[in-house]
Amino acid sequence: MRLKDLAEHLGLSQTTVSRALNGYPEVNEATRRRVANAADALGYRPNASALRLATGRAGAIGLVLRGADELGPHMSEFLSGVGSHMAAQEIDVLVATVASHAEELAAYRRLAASQKVDAVILHSPTTRDERAELLLELKIPFVLHGRTEIGHPVAWLDIDNAGALERATSHLLDLGHRRIALLNGLRGQTFAEHREQGYCAAFADRGLTPDRGLMANGVFTDEAAFRTAQAMLARRPAPTAFLAGSMMTALGVFRAIRQAGLELGTDVSMIAHDDVFPYLNADNMYPTMSTTRSPIRQAGARIADLITQVLAGKPLEEVHELWPVELVLRESSTRVRE
Amino acid sequence: MRLKDLAEHLGLSQTTVSRALNGYPEVNEATRRRVANAADALGYRPNASALRLATGRAGAIGLVLRGADELGPHMSEFLSGVGSHMAAQEIDVLVATVASHAEELAAYRRLAASQKVDAVILHSPTTRDERAELLLELKIPFVLHGRTEIGHPVAWLDIDNAGALERATSHLLDLGHRRIALLNGLRGQTFAEHREQGYCAAFADRGLTPDRGLMANGVFTDEAAFRTAQAMLARRPAPTAFLAGSMMTALGVFRAIRQAGLELGTDVSMIAHDDVFPYLNADNMYPTMSTTRSPIRQAGARIADLITQVLAGKPLEEVHELWPVELVLRESSTRVRE
Repeated sequence: MRLKDLAEHLGLSQTTVSRALNGYPEVNEATRRRVANAADALGYRPNASALRLATGRAGAIGLVLRGADELGPHMSEFLSGVGSHMAAQEIDVLVATVASHAEELAAYRRLAASQKVDAVILHSPTTRDERAELLLELKIPFVLHGRTEIGHPVAWLDIDNAGALERATSHLLDLGHRRIALLNGLRGQTFAEHREQGYCAAFADRGLTPDRGLMANGVFTDEAAFRTAQAMLARRPAPTAFLAGSMMTALGVFRAIRQAGLELGTDVSMIAHDDVFPYLNADNMYPTMSTTRSPIRQAGARIADLITQVLAGKPLEEVHELWPVELVLRESSTRVRE
Repeated sequence: MRLKDLAEHLGLSQTTVSRALNGYPEVNEATRRRVANAADALGYRPNASALRLATGRAGAIGLVLRGADELGPHMSEFLSGVGSHMAAQEIDVLVATVASHAEELAAYRRLAASQKVDAVILHSPTTRDERAELLLELKIPFVLHGRTEIGHPVAWLDIDNAGALERATSHLLDLGHRRIALLNGLRGQTFAEHREQGYCAAFADRGLTPDRGLMANGVFTDEAAFRTAQAMLARRPAPTAFLAGSMMTALGVFRAIRQAGLELGTDVSMIAHDDVFPYLNADNMYPTMSTTRSPIRQAGARIADLITQVLAGKPLEEVHELWPVELVLRESSTRVRE
């Protein structure tokens, strides 16, 4: 039995029948009940493709990943948060993996054309993000995790990366450190630019200038961080403190410190940014790790909530959330060794 | 411009037009070219919901997660593998998160009814998995990551968990260990039952019986492993070796060993199962970790490939892959201390 057959049986249009089955308010209660009873009696199972055509809702939100590696620890924690919120609403998350920037733009076009998703979560923005401009042009509702400057209002949620790094850097400066290495994300990514601004602001605030040779940009893996930290620790004078961009970065820096025969928390200090992974707990490390802390899972859950608000008609310029980041001091950050 | 309008303009049926646009072989080359030219000239963009109705393909495969926590390190590595294979084919992965077993079954019914996916990846099977039976009943093609016994042929890919544990346990027995703790997955999960079988077989092979008090079942988190290992190390006699079910489990056991004032690799040995997370490298630990090793990302990529084969008509009883697991010996497993 197809929607068409059910509609013919009832003497109603397909649109009315599918609206009735979806509980749309335009259909009165008597008709809704008549349709539901007939569907039951005739064993009609709604076909989502037909319903989507009639109702214009896909029941899914999209997420495009550039390369399989993008589904790493950060993204999976974030998606856990999204999923926890969407589960209650029977909204699915459609994950499209692509291999390049060009393919990524094509994927958004494809999602727009196919109407497989009602909205998109845009993540890892650059300071002027072409994808955000494309999504506006394609008229796909989206919420941005992070910020971008494209001259149009967009809905976003971000953490205060500049504030977090300013506070962490200030704390290390107060402990007497001057050669503070910054292991930051890739250049052009908004969060990395914000973190650099915060780091530089803390130095400037004290009339100091950071050593640019201690500012590195790279991916947040144990391996990349190990190599960078190893090279920095071989310099003379060597850095006395590290700001690690993620917990994975912290693992690599920790390894380089050990390999150089130094001890974290006495010879060298470290503050890491902690997105709060259940399996890499800053409190359970030896020594325990000082962190700037913001659970990325909560951001995912909140963005899912914001998307449902945007789909319900909330104006984009009212969806702007900047979350503060806490500085949690533990054993890894101590006074500089003279 | 809708499919209907394009079809009317061309004097063809909607089905023919949509098959032509999708390159179906039933449509001859001349018609295909005529349809493509008209679509270009009139600015027609195919609507996937309409195409799906006509072609019966969703262009997506489904994955149901029970609880947001299920999208942890194992699942995200696995999904990275799936995504890497699907990206080339423009096939998306639809992730549905549910809160309970009942909701999980409902989600499969919903996926079947909505035709949002062409196939499903079934994961974390129990020894007799109700979900596999439901998927057969619903006639949704699926490939199982793991194995189950339900009396019908299903397509599956699994690693040799029994063989891996038998080899690791044998190695520890050869090093003189007798009190070997097994930190295993949840009871009823097929992989955990297989691991227990391998563990027991190694003991039985030497005419020995393992201490059942050293066999624990739980979730693979640092925290759960820490508590279990802590309690076991407080027993007299204490275990001299641990078999950790995952790298997260290994972190918790390592912490308990340290907290008990013992040293891994001299006082206590450990072999962990390593699914190969890029950010938790067994070679980079202190001491380096002996492991049974099988990259879960590769399993994901291979299962994606098997799904495309099943969708292309390969019989399910020909899709059975059992992958061997290597034992990699490093510093954490040494001769028992007398």
